[in-house]
Amino acid sequence: MSNSFGNIFKISTWGESHGESIGVLIDGCPAGIPIKAEEIQQELNKRKPGQSKITTQRKESDKCEIQSGIFENKTLGTPIAILIKNQDARPEAYDKMKDLYRPSHADYSYQAKYQIRDWRGGGRASARETTARVAGGAIAKKVLSTLYPKLKILAWVDSIHQIQANIKTKDITSKLIEANAVRCPDSKTAKKMEELIQETRKEGNSVGGTIKALIRNCPLGLGEPVFDKLEASLAKAMLSIPATKGFEIGSGFEGTKMKGSQHNDLFYSENNSIKTKTNYSGGIQGGISNGEEIYFKIAFKPTATISKEQETINIEKKSIKFRGEGRHDPCVLPRAVPIVEAMTALVLCDHTLLQKVQKTKI
Amino acid sequence: MSNSFGNIFKISTWGESHGESIGVLIDGCPAGIPIKAEEIQQELNKRKPGQSKITTQRKESDKCEIQSGIFENKTLGTPIAILIKNQDARPEAYDKMKDLYRPSHADYSYQAKYQIRDWRGGGRASARETTARVAGGAIAKKVLSTLYPKLKILAWVDSIHQIQANIKTKDITSKLIEANAVRCPDSKTAKKMEELIQETRKEGNSVGGTIKALIRNCPLGLGEPVFDKLEASLAKAMLSIPATKGFEIGSGFEGTKMKGSQHNDLFYSENNSIKTKTNYSGGIQGGISNGEEIYFKIAFKPTATISKEQETINIEKKSIKFRGEGRHDPCVLPRAVPIVEAMTALVLCDHTLLQKVQKTKI
Amino acid sequence: MSNSFGNIFKISTWGESHGESIGVLIDGCPAGIPIKAEEIQQELNKRKPGQSKITTQRKESDKCEIQSGIFENKTLGTPIAILIKNQDARPEAYDKMKDLYRPSHADYSYQAKYQIRDWRGGGRASARETTARVAGGAIAKKVLSTLYPKLKILAWVDSIHQIQANIKTKDITSKLIEANAVRCPDSKTAKKMEELIQETRKEGNSVGGTIKALIRNCPLGLGEPVFDKLEASLAKAMLSIPATKGFEIGSGFEGTKMKGSQHNDLFYSENNSIKTKTNYSGGIQGGISNGEEIYFKIAFKPTATISKEQETINIEKKSIKFRGEGRHDPCVLPRAVPIVEAMTALVLCDHTLLQKVQKTKI
Amino acid sequence: MSNSFGNIFKISTWGESHGESIGVLIDGCPAGIPIKAEEIQQELNKRKPGQSKITTQRKESDKCEIQSGIFENKTLGTPIAILIKNQDARPEAYDKMKDLYRPSHADYSYQAKYQIRDWRGGGRASARETTARVAGGAIAKKVLSTLYPKLKILAWVDSIHQIQANIKTKDITSKLIEANAVRCPDSKTAKKMEELIQETRKEGNSVGGTIKALIRNCPLGLGEPVFDKLEASLAKAMLSIPATKGFEIGSGFEGTKMKGSQHNDLFYSENNSIKTKTNYSGGIQGGISNGEEIYFKIAFKPTATISKEQETINIEKKSIKFRGEGRHDPCVLPRAVPIVEAMTALVLCDHTLLQKVQKTKI
Repeated sequence: MSNSFGNIFKISTWGESHGESIGVLIDGCPAGIPIKAEEIQQELNKRKPGQSKITTQRKESDKCEIQSGIFENKTLGTPIAILIKNQDARPEAYDKMKDLYRPSHADYSYQAKYQIRDWRGGGRASARETTARVAGGAIAKKVLSTLYPKLKILAWVDSIHQIQANIKTKDITSKLIEANAVRCPDSKTAKKMEELIQETRKEGNSVGGTIKALIRNCPLGLGEPVFDKLEASLAKAMLSIPATKGFEIGSGFEGTKMKGSQHNDLFYSENNSIKTKTNYSGGIQGGISNGEEIYFKIAFKPTATISKEQETINIEKKSIKFRGEGRHDPCVLPRAVPIVEAMTALVLCDHTLLQKVQKTKI
Repeated sequence: MSNSFGNIFKISTWGESHGESIGVLIDGCPAGIPIKAEEIQQELNKRKPGQSKITTQRKESDKCEIQSGIFENKTLGTPIAILIKNQDARPEAYDKMKDLYRPSHADYSYQAKYQIRDWRGGGRASARETTARVAGGAIAKKVLSTLYPKLKILAWVDSIHQIQANIKTKDITSKLIEANAVRCPDSKTAKKMEELIQETRKEGNSVGGTIKALIRNCPLGLGEPVFDKLEASLAKAMLSIPATKGFEIGSGFEGTKMKGSQHNDLFYSENNSIKTKTNYSGGIQGGISNGEEIYFKIAFKPTATISKEQETINIEKKSIKFRGEGRHDPCVLPRAVPIVEAMTALVLCDHTLLQKVQKTKI
Repeated sequence: MSNSFGNIFKISTWGESHGESIGVLIDGCPAGIPIKAEEIQQELNKRKPGQSKITTQRKESDKCEIQSGIFENKTLGTPIAILIKNQDARPEAYDKMKDLYRPSHADYSYQAKYQIRDWRGGGRASARETTARVAGGAIAKKVLSTLYPKLKILAWVDSIHQIQANIKTKDITSKLIEANAVRCPDSKTAKKMEELIQETRKEGNSVGGTIKALIRNCPLGLGEPVFDKLEASLAKAMLSIPATKGFEIGSGFEGTKMKGSQHNDLFYSENNSIKTKTNYSGGIQGGISNGEEIYFKIAFKPTATISKEQETINIEKKSIKFRGEGRHDPCVLPRAVPIVEAMTALVLCDHTLLQKVQKTKI
Repeated sequence: MSNSFGNIFKISTWGESHGESIGVLIDGCPAGIPIKAEEIQQELNKRKPGQSKITTQRKESDKCEIQSGIFENKTLGTPIAILIKNQDARPEAYDKMKDLYRPSHADYSYQAKYQIRDWRGGGRASARETTARVAGGAIAKKVLSTLYPKLKILAWVDSIHQIQANIKTKDITSKLIEANAVRCPDSKTAKKMEELIQETRKEGNSVGGTIKALIRNCPLGLGEPVFDKLEASLAKAMLSIPATKGFEIGSGFEGTKMKGSQHNDLFYSENNSIKTKTNYSGGIQGGISNGEEIYFKIAFKPTATISKEQETINIEKKSIKFRGEGRHDPCVLPRAVPIVEAMTALVLCDHTLLQKVQKTKI
């Protein structure tokens, strides 16, 4: 009951970190959407391990293998299955994980829930699962760009540990984001962040941070009150990403310190279209997009796997010392950027189709 | 596709602010749960308008009328419908709202989405809809207390505007929360908050704030990876409440500034049970409850309805002046406390039943 | 998990036979559909008890009370709740049912499933629940007639016990169906059927029969392969109606005795539209409507409640004699006709909206 | 919205007839269920093409490749993906199908629905899709046999064209069914059926027939009123199988000719358990299993693909002559038997888990 996301444009994912493959099954994709394997691969490459010095060195080509649903480079309206084989799976490297519960990992809670777990590299709880989301998100992006050519989803690293980027939202472009390994569009700060990540790795530690995301030219009317408000769907999407601890939309927690007279976004009309003078709402009112920019922020905790020695317990509940030795990221944020974009695309694509139903002409 | 919440324990709600009634239909409730109308009423009374000087003075008894699914004070396993009639509906008071879009309200986005709207008091977008959630949550609470007598859900006002409560989590009780009109268990601060709310009302303005929530003695193993992680479900639940702008679980945004070696919650064993030395995770790891306390925080923006004059536009896109005259809360937080508890109970109840399936004995 | 029907146009129903009310909640109805309470009432009247000599004499006005979702005679896009109060509820008349399991009723299986049951008149298992379906179906019919003015759903009594109607499908009209109390468009046969039903009642017995249904001018392309084929959705819809025992689409069981060369429906083109020479397929191929007439047949068993004495057991598993004394129909078919139409409309409306998603223009 | 089946134990399938692979993703399977690849393969072999002289000679090993969700021969509680590669895909053999609509196939209706179709061997509409159902059903069978060792699902060929099997239900065993290529447990009749199928193939024609299915020792209490009655779920499951035209449960269409006094199944008590003297209900009352045997019957039309010449039209709506040349079954029933069993197992497994939720102890 848990491995699917979406109401109409629905993805279902599978796969353990060191099993045969990771995959995604997409149901509800309209027919006739043009899509090439390379377009999916491009998105997967942004999430791929080993893409730069500051990420894990696990070797995975993450090659997408389309199984169904696409014919002569167009979607058929039938389910699209995409398979990504696990290549650099070294279950033996995780042998010692079999008998212990790593701190702040899911080993213990999975065991408690299922009475069984695939201990090889975290099994299903590994962030490797997010590969499938990115593949699904690539299809969602194509649906959106086909329906709304002007719509643009951007995510970037906003802070790492105590280092905060400083750049105006309006200046942000994909190019600036992809210009450095950290995926922070403020290049000066990006350099400092990169140094911090390198240092952190050396000291066997890890850091967290925040990612910001932006939806430009979002069509009016997306979002389904009452329970599937657009911000509620985004919040769920973001909090389902491993390592996330918080979500803010629009004015967020800071907005709680304002008065209504300041916070209200006043409507005005310009060139026959309705706009707001400020955008504390973050482009969503009553759970429905109002045509303004949608922006939100997500908190990521520092990676749980560190190579510093830590205390923990083994499965016999005895206290032991433990040191992470797997290949891991000292900071997940640079590789989380495409995941945030993918989840955003999935939410928007699903809500777009939901709104198509509503718009049923009379 | 939007007015239901939950996978197995599912509520569906209906009702416009000034229509005939507000209601909730609960499907998937196990049979044999003892429940009395008074127990539902008790929860509704906490959310009821006019309960204190600092809330709206709309007169609604919010009397719950059970239509089905309960027989001789026990659930039948069949759908439970609960009806709450709208009594103090004065649609005429909202006549002028027919022709304009109130700032930071849903008037414009509803119109854009549906090409029609019930303009009487916000219609479906009115927070009056949350009455139905509280009724549904009352049933969820009874299921939980029947299955897990020790489980306890608590929510309280943590800050109003710039005023921050100061009380240790372990000291918080229902009694302390209900001891004042603000629902802040720190009684000294509560007084200041109450004064601020009163002043704000006088100046025709509004304030926001934060609510904290706590789940004590949550059973191990709740939460469904990958997409229905417990925190993801809570995030969606909270961001679906009107006026919310943010959600944090465990260490939240502050946790992003820590290093892994500090943030990791080390396991230890005590009296044969497994615990963690710290709880930055907030009681959830890998999306599954680990037996520690679950705590989270929600941001509420200042109420959009204020009686200060504001600029906005009418439906002909002409600029006009507008002044809110309906009966409204200068601060929604005190009445949002039972809503947060209700949504939390609904999430836990649904995940409890999902986990029952998993625990299917072999 | 069981009281909802539909994927996008979804109804959820509630109510026990002798509880407060019966009701339906409709979610996913597009906005702007014109609907008047009278239109719903008209459908309810066709199913209403006491409408003729051959039905139960329970006195229920079955007055529909719209609670939400309709404003100035148009749908709002928000959930539509419709309440039908139980008026002639005489729970005391069913007192003796408390302690026994009536033959071929659901008393025993409900008790076994839930360990509790509302024994008053069958509780949730009473066919009174179908009132809510008819109310929901009335909305579905309006959506369909708004979108496809030529589409026409017809259901009628085809046989009662061993009496078989004899009328050409092409001659059938609503008027002919409604011309007699049996709802059989072959008026001669209808008379015999009516006599049989009257006799059967006198002898304290009951009869079953078959209902046929027809969809004229069904749009092309409805039906979702693989699992939600149009015929699969219809089959589920029909077998969910109380007392049904079988379903046939197109050539049905008779078709199994034909050879492929006879059974295949050959395509030809006429006035630029594609047709088939025969229609053994029943208007559906590969689970998708092909533009031909859709027709199907449903088997209804004889009513389980009879006033002849029967053996059964009580809740202490002791053998007893029992005689049905409630007000009941000696033959459910005349009143089942509007239920079959309602369920057909619900299926078509849901599939219409599903196909709108698919048709998302590129 | 169409390629998934089940509420809690949910399968989602993918694959076109001549694409890369066919597959199934199973979500909601409890953890700890023992399962070996051979057990899945065994079921697939029963459906495999080329297994006898009377089936299609397409060469497919239909080898199941487990991708995830099973670890050390036990289910993990995570999604189980099973891949079956298409091996003997000869899309070129179907080149001519590109430009025409085969009679009583889905070519035309798919094209009308999606404006695009994979014409290679019927694409998604090919019965090859059912391979994935059988793989999913194999897992469902293991869950059921683990939970209810006595439960037994049996399906067999009951009639082919005009040849009717004659065998008492109580005498039927898996061994008798698997004793001949037709899968008819009445061996004498089976021989005649086999001869008929061979002759039919020679004359370039095809035949249909009926399959009967039986559930022995079904636990009490399965089935979810109102809309997910056990028979409604079975009806949907069966009518979703390609080529099916009808479904009967218990007394079926014949039962409509009985009177209530004959048809009612009288309860009696034996050895402290409750039974019925007759079983016209077919083991289900009020949509819930009552502990008696469940039995039902399914109609299959004659295969649409025949090698006799037929008239049809091409995509330019011109009349043409057509002769099926693909490898196909002159009668689908023998290979449909494992599909009927698989769909039955999927329904029972899902309802079993739904009932576990209900049985939540208090």
